Amino acid sequence: MKELEELRRRAGEIADLHGIGGLLLWDQNTMMPPGGAAARADQFEALERILHDRITDPGLAKLLDALEPWAADQDPDSDAAALHRALRRDHHKAVNVPTDLAAEISSAAAHAQQAWMEAREAQDFKRFQPALERVLDLQARYIACFDGTGEFAHPYDVLLDDYEPGLTTAELTALFDNLQAELVPLVSAAAAAGEDGPVFAGRFPVDKQKTLTDELLRAVGYDPEHWRLDAAVHPFARSMAHTDVRLTTRWEEDDLAMAVYSCLHEFGHGLYEAQMDPAHYRTTLAEATGLGVHESQSRLWENLVGRSKPFCEWLLPLLRRHLGGPFEAIDVDQLYRDVNQVRLSLIRIEADETTYNLHVALRFELELALVEGRLSVAELPDAWNEATHRLLGLETPSLLEGVLQDIHWGAGMIGYFPTYTIGNLMSAQLWTALAADLPDVEERIAAGDFAPLREWLREHIHRHGRKYTSRELLKRTTGEELRVEPLLAYLEGKLLDAGLLNAPVRS
Amino acid sequence: MKELEELRRRAGEIADLHGIGGLLLWDQNTMMPPGGAAARADQFEALERILHDRITDPGLAKLLDALEPWAADQDPDSDAAALHRALRRDHHKAVNVPTDLAAEISSAAAHAQQAWMEAREAQDFKRFQPALERVLDLQARYIACFDGTGEFAHPYDVLLDDYEPGLTTAELTALFDNLQAELVPLVSAAAAAGEDGPVFAGRFPVDKQKTLTDELLRAVGYDPEHWRLDAAVHPFARSMAHTDVRLTTRWEEDDLAMAVYSCLHEFGHGLYEAQMDPAHYRTTLAEATGLGVHESQSRLWENLVGRSKPFCEWLLPLLRRHLGGPFEAIDVDQLYRDVNQVRLSLIRIEADETTYNLHVALRFELELALVEGRLSVAELPDAWNEATHRLLGLETPSLLEGVLQDIHWGAGMIGYFPTYTIGNLMSAQLWTALAADLPDVEERIAAGDFAPLREWLREHIHRHGRKYTSRELLKRTTGEELRVEPLLAYLEGKLLDAGLLNAPVRS
Repeated sequence: MKELEELRRRAGEIADLHGIGGLLLWDQNTMMPPGGAAARADQFEALERILHDRITDPGLAKLLDALEPWAADQDPDSDAAALHRALRRDHHKAVNVPTDLAAEISSAAAHAQQAWMEAREAQDFKRFQPALERVLDLQARYIACFDGTGEFAHPYDVLLDDYEPGLTTAELTALFDNLQAELVPLVSAAAAAGEDGPVFAGRFPVDKQKTLTDELLRAVGYDPEHWRLDAAVHPFARSMAHTDVRLTTRWEEDDLAMAVYSCLHEFGHGLYEAQMDPAHYRTTLAEATGLGVHESQSRLWENLVGRSKPFCEWLLPLLRRHLGGPFEAIDVDQLYRDVNQVRLSLIRIEADETTYNLHVALRFELELALVEGRLSVAELPDAWNEATHRLLGLETPSLLEGVLQDIHWGAGMIGYFPTYTIGNLMSAQLWTALAADLPDVEERIAAGDFAPLREWLREHIHRHGRKYTSRELLKRTTGEELRVEPLLAYLEGKLLDAGLLNAPVRS
Repeated sequence: MKELEELRRRAGEIADLHGIGGLLLWDQNTMMPPGGAAARADQFEALERILHDRITDPGLAKLLDALEPWAADQDPDSDAAALHRALRRDHHKAVNVPTDLAAEISSAAAHAQQAWMEAREAQDFKRFQPALERVLDLQARYIACFDGTGEFAHPYDVLLDDYEPGLTTAELTALFDNLQAELVPLVSAAAAAGEDGPVFAGRFPVDKQKTLTDELLRAVGYDPEHWRLDAAVHPFARSMAHTDVRLTTRWEEDDLAMAVYSCLHEFGHGLYEAQMDPAHYRTTLAEATGLGVHESQSRLWENLVGRSKPFCEWLLPLLRRHLGGPFEAIDVDQLYRDVNQVRLSLIRIEADETTYNLHVALRFELELALVEGRLSVAELPDAWNEATHRLLGLETPSLLEGVLQDIHWGAGMIGYFPTYTIGNLMSAQLWTALAADLPDVEERIAAGDFAPLREWLREHIHRHGRKYTSRELLKRTTGEELRVEPLLAYLEGKLLDAGLLNAPVRS
């Protein structure tokens, strides 16, 4: 079929350009000499413009229209029908936004990131305020582009849909309400009961951390033929194709936990991309179906695997072998407690697994208020501090520990934060399904045999790429909609099991 | 002027895409996991197709035509006129070649490189022969695309013009005839007189070689804000922009000369790209005007600077400081002799500075015969061995030391080899001009002050980019056409000076 072949050709080019974009980004954050930044921005812009042209091309629209009757006849689970759906969606989302507005959004974000850095330097929110106001103003114009389509019930839905297609503000509000109501007392009780020492206390030479993380990653499934690992200030993962996966981490003498847990986290992201069905290569299906699913994979490896007791059983001998000393003095129970400590803190990226979601709830609450116009940018710092007190019981002594700690809003990413918690929710739901299918998963993990786990994830999640929406994927795998109970039960259960909570808190 | 602005916009996009292509290539040869090769090939193809579209775009042709009367009125030395000329040339060269033929050429080259590797593995030329025949057949079709234009007097001119615009086969044949006639006796006399020990004999730990090359490169002008240095099997240099320059080298315990001289060589390439006029950034002018000029810069730093006596004076204390032992036992004269030894050998990339050009002469002779149809691919191995005996006086014991040693022909690069010797010729001509302008250049080098040398190269060569053709640039700088005498005089003079030749050989 000629039209389908042409659709595949176009999808192939778009996929190739996405792969190239991945390399530009990876290189910028790992290898590029600092002085190359301005030229890199030009290269990104050139690539983005070409991608936008390709996705909004009237020829693509005609092709999609011509294939509509054929697509309606197909099994919706077929690759071809899914490809048609995915390109239809991308075209629709892009074509509603004038190119000039897209360019303005991108340039305002670049400007606001610069302003954010200057405001941090000066510890002065006012230096960031006008740039953020401009970002929000442009986001409002972006939202307005979809006014006539009737597909979004709430302005925030338009933004959320870019990161987590199909999820609504109404659903998300209900999820966060439930989660928050239960998490606040849980966190407070666990923080009161918990010990207070740094996780993996001690200083460990970077070269030893490197050989440790190398062995750790190879054991869980890192394949040097197709993967690599480098250092980056903010660890991330990126793939250029399912055969070319790049992880990053941060090695610091006094922060072993960063190296170990960011490697596991980024490995989870990488495995999702590596295990996409090769048949989807060079199609729009070889991508994550949403950031929530992506994050569920990183959190699953970092937390549900990496902070589990069986994993601690496997990890302790490894730590002893590479780092010796301090790890000879502790047992598995102590390691298990160490890596699951709950501590109230002000910085999201340093938060423990349980508290983390309260940081996200705070950001969702505030960005929703901004988008709805209930909150102005000028009022944001006070609102941040008030919410921090309400959710975490903490005072915010500085802007760096408060409203200026994250780059997201300045980068124009509004609607992005919730995907971190969506990932946490999903990871617990998926784990329940996985544990039911693999009754001996804990024994396997304790024995360092991660293959059955990888295979289960490949079969149920990874290989599908964008073929199903997040919602469909979760439903197919767990039979459920997104919900908070599995995460809450998992968190409380583990804290009790590790002896970090004296008694159940939840009713 | 609206049209000129539009021309600049188009040139900017093409330059950005070239920068992206540079990154794809650099990454492929330094960082990419081996399993990523197939996806990288797809990404290259996607980028090449877009670049070809942009350069052959009828809209560009119309724009160039519309600007023709304006361009005719401009100072030909102005940036705007030069940009118009360069884009006119690129468009003309690309538009004469049907896209399908360009795609076939690129795919045949990919196939032939694979066949070349298999033939090397099996030491069997027949495995390479059909693929190389296909490459040559397609090159003939490529040449035929310019039949009607009347601009090329010889079929080989079409190929040469892609690497060294404007140079003709007739000129090149005369240059090689002269060079060869004088080099054969010179090489033979120097090889007979010379010592026979490996250059920089000894084993040196890689980490010490790294700190040495780091200090060496910073001294000559490597700027960590805009440059980086990595390992690669075949050292090369590539820039993504004048602000983002990547060098590579090879560190091996038993080959210190490789690290030192490939760093200097690639630095020469990098400096050319780094010192282009920033005003040419994002235009087609911010590129090398030809591969000969590019190579003249690498050879100048590697040989005319790096193997000079004053450089040895500066280098020896550095070698002693980093590597100690063996370098305490020699003096500057010995180092100077060591790095200038002439030894007859079969492998081009291992050849010394003097012999090197005979390896190039051999390849030029054979590829010209192939293009003219005087030689068939089947006859190539015997012809190679015969020429090796005639030029170097050596027997060729294996295909790996003979016709299968270089990847160029398999990669479709016919007309490329001569640029190595053109670079050598130019480097000697430029040095004569430079030494006249900077009478104390030797003292400066001995003192480790390379700034005046860099500035002279910036002023006379680097900043211009593609503004002038190689021929014009050489003429402006030296008042001369390309010629062999300065290189021959320099080579013989140095061999005599270093005591590596007992008496003058040339009449």
